[in-house]
Amino acid sequence: MLLESITVYDIAREANVSVATVSRVLNDTAPVRTSTRQKIMAIIEKHNFQPNVLARSLVNKKTGMIGVLFPDSSNMFFPEVFGGAERAAQKLGYTLFLCNTFSDCSRESEYLNSLCERQVEGLLFMGGRINSRHCPDALVQEVVHIQKKIPIVLINGSLPGHPCHRVKTDEYLGAQLLMQHLIDHGHRRIGFIGGTAETTTTFEKLQAYKRSLLANSLSYRQDWVRLGDFSMACGRKQMDQFMMMPERPTAFLCMNDYVAIGAMKAAISRGLRIPEDVAIAGFDDTQLASAMNPELTTVSQHSEQLGRQAMLILSKLIQKEKVKKLTVLEPTLLIRQSTQ
Amino acid sequence: MLLESITVYDIAREANVSVATVSRVLNDTAPVRTSTRQKIMAIIEKHNFQPNVLARSLVNKKTGMIGVLFPDSSNMFFPEVFGGAERAAQKLGYTLFLCNTFSDCSRESEYLNSLCERQVEGLLFMGGRINSRHCPDALVQEVVHIQKKIPIVLINGSLPGHPCHRVKTDEYLGAQLLMQHLIDHGHRRIGFIGGTAETTTTFEKLQAYKRSLLANSLSYRQDWVRLGDFSMACGRKQMDQFMMMPERPTAFLCMNDYVAIGAMKAAISRGLRIPEDVAIAGFDDTQLASAMNPELTTVSQHSEQLGRQAMLILSKLIQKEKVKKLTVLEPTLLIRQSTQ
Repeated sequence: MLLESITVYDIAREANVSVATVSRVLNDTAPVRTSTRQKIMAIIEKHNFQPNVLARSLVNKKTGMIGVLFPDSSNMFFPEVFGGAERAAQKLGYTLFLCNTFSDCSRESEYLNSLCERQVEGLLFMGGRINSRHCPDALVQEVVHIQKKIPIVLINGSLPGHPCHRVKTDEYLGAQLLMQHLIDHGHRRIGFIGGTAETTTTFEKLQAYKRSLLANSLSYRQDWVRLGDFSMACGRKQMDQFMMMPERPTAFLCMNDYVAIGAMKAAISRGLRIPEDVAIAGFDDTQLASAMNPELTTVSQHSEQLGRQAMLILSKLIQKEKVKKLTVLEPTLLIRQSTQ
Repeated sequence: MLLESITVYDIAREANVSVATVSRVLNDTAPVRTSTRQKIMAIIEKHNFQPNVLARSLVNKKTGMIGVLFPDSSNMFFPEVFGGAERAAQKLGYTLFLCNTFSDCSRESEYLNSLCERQVEGLLFMGGRINSRHCPDALVQEVVHIQKKIPIVLINGSLPGHPCHRVKTDEYLGAQLLMQHLIDHGHRRIGFIGGTAETTTTFEKLQAYKRSLLANSLSYRQDWVRLGDFSMACGRKQMDQFMMMPERPTAFLCMNDYVAIGAMKAAISRGLRIPEDVAIAGFDDTQLASAMNPELTTVSQHSEQLGRQAMLILSKLIQKEKVKKLTVLEPTLLIRQSTQ
């Protein structure tokens, strides 16, 4: 099992047979003459040989390993998706190899390389370049190249111009449901907080935001859209800015739960009541949302299921089964205290 | 790079040299005669050979991989520790292989096995058996056996009877600081919520709780200690129970931030004000703590630093440097709105 073990190559040499023959005996993948089998077994027993996974994977080309590119362990949404994938992987006999890229493209490249070299059987990809609205072609090509050899499933992302296997929640629909909820509750002035213009997830929500205003004959004001990033700090800072405006929204659609919580905290610290003075909604339904006081209205992306689905699809691709390219999960609106 | 590549063994055969010689040329680890080197390089170029990590690791016995046993991705404390370890690992050139054990001992065993077979160079161990107060000897022996071959660093845990390399926060001191803070604020009736009797982390905090009461001549009441588990649901349920007692504490020490938040929610839903009617303190300073309203008093375990330290120590062990067995980080009391 450990480093001192002799290898299949040593056994092949000692038995004067090919490595493939040793492999056939070890993995029972094809018949081997009885006398040869006995000779090999005797050598294996003599050395107390434990077939090791690395050697085995060189021979039968299976590692049982799946690489997971993961953008940010400080946003609970991603550990939740990973948890779902992990539970599915265990049932299917795969081991997940989690790599935290912090959404940095050069770290992604490093990890992609390192995972391929370690001969993972498949890749789950979240964050970073697959969420970029203007992803440089070299970064797209890197993934396309790998995809020729190793199945890849993208979670909540895409590679423009290249059909990939993807699992995603309909974020556009989610944002639309939230907007309709706010409008139905009488809000006519609605702001948008958080995200970066470069990311597809921000773009989709912003599109839903704009079209919902339009569909309800409400005016779109550019100064009521304040992007930034995906953090609590961003929510806090942008809400502070809104507070200084002579005319401000009565309700806010936030990029995610973290931004929403930052915004809530800024509003509360200025003495505003939620939802009486200002309504605030998040996105993702991380465990934070229901922990808050008041509890946060949000949209569930069914994070666990998203991870599980992606893993199931990846395992089918590894088995060379046909799978449709795109799987879309429907989001669920969760109305809580922060908006009503 | 990928599966089709020929191996170092094929090259050795074709060049009529040993695998070790090919390895020396590939890794530049020892001088090789110029004519031999040229012959090997020519074969490498002819086949467009990409040295692959698996083959390389069979030869030079280095994989650059570190296994991480990780109990629970749904408690932010653990992703935070992992984040610290990850950042340190990247600087040191290691790749972390994260395995979610859900603190289940048989999953731990599976993963330990699988990580060893994949020839990780070291292990970081969190949760599960190393936090068990009465860990079955077979489970201890399994780790002791692996430790003979692979360096292991335990984070916030130990293996009774076996000296291991450990990094931990002084949880006893942390709980003591919290107790003293509550007592200094005039609380004479203090309850304890959450955790399981079986775990060392519960035991340490409970010891600090009892001794602080004693040191301040306050009486210990068994019915004011309500264990359960480490979840928000536990905090909620136990606070509900306390609410039905004719005589109840005015302040609560909770196992972790999650339990504290559950307790806060239960108290708030019954119309109690925090901290005026009841003071509540958590543990860990996960990002939830400061997000809450009111913000949660807690103890920081310096989770990032804990992960980073563990990784640094592990890398020294891998380099066969001498490292002291136990590294203790001091916790920091963070007094926020929920207790004052």
